[in-house]
Amino acid sequence: MDDIQSLFVKNILRDAGSTLKDSGSAFAASNIALSKYWGKRDAALNLPVNSSLSVSLGDLGTRTEIRLADADSVQLNGTPVELTDGFAVRTLEFLKLFPMVGTHFDVRTENTIPTAAGLASSASGFAALVMALDDLAGWGLDKKKLSMLARLGSGSASRSVYNGFVQWNAGTSADGLDSYAEPLSSDWKDFRIGILELSKARKPVGSRDGMNRTVETSELYKSWPAQANRDIEIIRAAIEARDFPTLGKAAEHNALAMHATMMSAWPPLIYLQPESMVMIHKVQFARADGLEVYLTIDAGPNIKLLFLEENERAVVDVFQGLEVVKPFG
Amino acid sequence: MDDIQSLFVKNILRDAGSTLKDSGSAFAASNIALSKYWGKRDAALNLPVNSSLSVSLGDLGTRTEIRLADADSVQLNGTPVELTDGFAVRTLEFLKLFPMVGTHFDVRTENTIPTAAGLASSASGFAALVMALDDLAGWGLDKKKLSMLARLGSGSASRSVYNGFVQWNAGTSADGLDSYAEPLSSDWKDFRIGILELSKARKPVGSRDGMNRTVETSELYKSWPAQANRDIEIIRAAIEARDFPTLGKAAEHNALAMHATMMSAWPPLIYLQPESMVMIHKVQFARADGLEVYLTIDAGPNIKLLFLEENERAVVDVFQGLEVVKPFG
Repeated sequence: MDDIQSLFVKNILRDAGSTLKDSGSAFAASNIALSKYWGKRDAALNLPVNSSLSVSLGDLGTRTEIRLADADSVQLNGTPVELTDGFAVRTLEFLKLFPMVGTHFDVRTENTIPTAAGLASSASGFAALVMALDDLAGWGLDKKKLSMLARLGSGSASRSVYNGFVQWNAGTSADGLDSYAEPLSSDWKDFRIGILELSKARKPVGSRDGMNRTVETSELYKSWPAQANRDIEIIRAAIEARDFPTLGKAAEHNALAMHATMMSAWPPLIYLQPESMVMIHKVQFARADGLEVYLTIDAGPNIKLLFLEENERAVVDVFQGLEVVKPFG
Repeated sequence: MDDIQSLFVKNILRDAGSTLKDSGSAFAASNIALSKYWGKRDAALNLPVNSSLSVSLGDLGTRTEIRLADADSVQLNGTPVELTDGFAVRTLEFLKLFPMVGTHFDVRTENTIPTAAGLASSASGFAALVMALDDLAGWGLDKKKLSMLARLGSGSASRSVYNGFVQWNAGTSADGLDSYAEPLSSDWKDFRIGILELSKARKPVGSRDGMNRTVETSELYKSWPAQANRDIEIIRAAIEARDFPTLGKAAEHNALAMHATMMSAWPPLIYLQPESMVMIHKVQFARADGLEVYLTIDAGPNIKLLFLEENERAVVDVFQGLEVVKPFG
């Protein structure tokens, strides 16, 4: 682990209490960004180039239980995971940042995200891990600090410590202490997200490497921060005003612009598959037909739809096999 | 017609001779841009934001014959065209810029581009029309002036007055007199272009409107001129050095970056179809397998492949139905 990460952790924990319990546990929701995180200004501290804004997925997420042990062990959805497996490696490497708590851990993780949903679990995973650790160690950290610790595991995890709409402020400081998430409005009952899993294929390039390649080789990426800053402001105002079409347009524009920066990297980063293109065109046609539906896409082939409850039946009719999520219960 | 266009034409013809013949005729080659023209700085004079670089397609192009007549008539590939048809309207509107030659014209156009190739014919069409008009009127204009007149009909037509590799300099002047094409090297015998027609569907948005929408609504477009300027320099140097991989990479990077600016426009301009995506991925896989093949794509769904003769057999093997063009005979 980088010294810079250990120093950051010590900084965060400076005034924390410590009343070790037998075990700690926590739940964190998965989240989908409406204005994307794409590009790091600092790799060790996971500091982003631009602020991002997401919506958390209610009870879809990760529950984690952690306790001290004589040897490391990791369980995922009730099944022991080999310690050489990527999931176990990332989890245990992260925990090595916290020697003040212990050397070896028993970690049990349950994802309540249906596997079929094709949602990333690293955001809710690292958020739940940090919150469970806080519970175990008795630090009593506030959410701002939990957000910053979760960020070290995965950038988007910083947003998963909150429910509802969440903004992760990029911050400007080199020490990473002004880069954390904060909650926005957390109630839009008829807001819906539809998940279309188009491909289970492993991404040819992971998000971390894709981000770095884009920042290093895409000329168009130079205009991305301005796009992101504009979109986040539009979406914030649209959430305040409960103006769904404005939110939908900005979210779709933002996601396509992110994919545009990937496509203009070298070698090209084409996360979109032919099936993704079918759906992108289908969303345009549906909207031209008067249906208020918008899309967003993360660094992968799968499409997420944004719509309101009043159009749920019509959207499900057009997009067969859609899994509908109610972020606000 | 705009007065500014008529003034421009008079300016070009100022010192031209005039010995009217019975008929004029000319051939102009189609061209494929390796570094794309995307975005106008002036609509009336068709002045581009950025310079572009193309390769002309040898004997694939347009042959046009023109004579004065008592009434307008237009033939395309031996068949009379209704005067209300888009092709006839654009042709005759363009000829109205030249009242000093005549009021009514008989225009006969033959495209030697196989229809199946799915290639734009407006570039070779306007270039051949201007050159045939020059022949009819006996102006004896040099190619630089012919290039500027052809530009008024269609930007990319400015490049079709030359064979081989051609650069269209954007120019900076408001009068449009420094925005013309010039020939680069015109001999690379084993250079090949493969044309994959994936869709005959009419584009939902024409290039002219697509260009304007991109310039007006895409934040990422702000970084496009820098991309284009860099690519054109790389490609020029690669042509000099006969360095095919460098040329191929820059051409593919350029085309994908252009599509990235489209995709990040609003409403999104998605010219790529699912079939295009299949081929884009296929090109990446073929290259990962060691085959030196690159792609370029204009404002439409069809893919053009770039490769050398030494790999022609392998490329045709992988990409079934490919039409191979030899730009240098």
